[in-house]
Amino acid sequence: MNKQQLIEQIKLKKSFLCVGLDTDIKKIPEHLLKEEDPIFAFNKAIIDATAPYCIAYKPNLAFYESMGVKGWIAFEKTVEYIKKNYPEQFIIADAKRGDIGNTSQMYARTFFEEMDIDSVTVAPYMGEDSVTPFLTYEGKWVILLALTSNKGSHDFQLTTDTEGERLFEKVLRKSQEWANDENMMYVVGATQGRMFEDIRKIVPNHFLLVPGVGAQGGSLEEVCKYGMTKDCGLIVNSSRAIIYADKTERFAEVAGIEAKKVQEQMAEQLNK
Amino acid sequence: MNKQQLIEQIKLKKSFLCVGLDTDIKKIPEHLLKEEDPIFAFNKAIIDATAPYCIAYKPNLAFYESMGVKGWIAFEKTVEYIKKNYPEQFIIADAKRGDIGNTSQMYARTFFEEMDIDSVTVAPYMGEDSVTPFLTYEGKWVILLALTSNKGSHDFQLTTDTEGERLFEKVLRKSQEWANDENMMYVVGATQGRMFEDIRKIVPNHFLLVPGVGAQGGSLEEVCKYGMTKDCGLIVNSSRAIIYADKTERFAEVAGIEAKKVQEQMAEQLNK
Repeated sequence: MNKQQLIEQIKLKKSFLCVGLDTDIKKIPEHLLKEEDPIFAFNKAIIDATAPYCIAYKPNLAFYESMGVKGWIAFEKTVEYIKKNYPEQFIIADAKRGDIGNTSQMYARTFFEEMDIDSVTVAPYMGEDSVTPFLTYEGKWVILLALTSNKGSHDFQLTTDTEGERLFEKVLRKSQEWANDENMMYVVGATQGRMFEDIRKIVPNHFLLVPGVGAQGGSLEEVCKYGMTKDCGLIVNSSRAIIYADKTERFAEVAGIEAKKVQEQMAEQLNK
Repeated sequence: MNKQQLIEQIKLKKSFLCVGLDTDIKKIPEHLLKEEDPIFAFNKAIIDATAPYCIAYKPNLAFYESMGVKGWIAFEKTVEYIKKNYPEQFIIADAKRGDIGNTSQMYARTFFEEMDIDSVTVAPYMGEDSVTPFLTYEGKWVILLALTSNKGSHDFQLTTDTEGERLFEKVLRKSQEWANDENMMYVVGATQGRMFEDIRKIVPNHFLLVPGVGAQGGSLEEVCKYGMTKDCGLIVNSSRAIIYADKTERFAEVAGIEAKKVQEQMAEQLNK
């Protein structure tokens, strides 16, 4: 999916919500455990209930890998289900990969060739040749970690160098030598508040993937105030607050209601 | 496996070689493609041929994931095979993971609980709470990226901050607040030469996992000269130069010969 198509979806749905599929066998409703593939059964119901209110899905690989082969099968079935039934949805493999060139090439092959997923999150620590193998696929995106939502983001990402530049700023600036706003986005945590102003000085037009609204405590209003562009420029993720909003047989219905609430807040922000 | 057991294996085998199982279906001998699980058949033969000369195996997750469910099965079978037949071998899941706390917790569960692997490589960019979930398992290790072997290591890892500390040095120093030399090692590329001196100033006793000898051009002698401690303190990895040394039906035999050559060089270094 290219940038223009993504912007059109946002305008059409009045939403820039991404539903995070952090599906944990220990947290899904009990009645699903009798299903042949409980993880996929959960995802399918959540997707059907939330699709009208979101423009993206983000399966978090850790949750699938923790179940080994079964988890990997559930992940593949989930991606296929979205692609077949909701081809307008942008899919993000939240994998935070990044390795030497020949290895990043293998990861790119997995997500972009084998599975035809739109985008993958990548960690910047290993630099240019760990990122560029993901950039050779037409219509596919790298979503590079810049300033994350967690407490540990302060340990290294905010370190200021001798040029007066903080590490996340260097990542934003340097990575533009390898990519542009048609094939790269950045992860910026919703918990970072006014830092979005500093980020927009360096990447005024790039899309940002924003986790941390909901369970992690970030504010949608603040993210929009400091981070929104004329094309929206934001994909805001919510995982736990939507998919685990209810643990009974009504879980999907309630997830849909929660997604709709967020979508309505987003419509307001888009109208400002 | 704890540190003392690892040191004993190194002394016993006069080797600190790790064989990297970067198994690529496109590079293995053609006659294996008729096997039910060619990747596992290749690994099994390589392991049997090289086990006398190495003390560790490092399957690189990217290569298995690129094959989807089949690859994940081959990965699990490989780990089980090593654990059953060569329980004295140290196993490294080369995954370069790292995410917010609840997600890193899931990765830790995968590698340490489900699969009972000794160690996993982790990326430091997201800071403390992305690393600590891996540190709660007795006898298990985090191998944190510090100064990698690739060209891109210069992009961010060498950035000097306002305190005069380079990013990889800050990673080495800061991470010692979370862990010690009994549950953490560091990745330092063999291509980094004399930088090992600077690294040993900060982590004099930690084990270092050293990729980049062989296909990537690092020198074993230089690594030992600047990086070896009285307990060795090094696990040096070679992947392609060993496992793809021959592409005929003799591939495993030749891999064994190549591993033995490296082991003999290592025995010399240990005797110095």
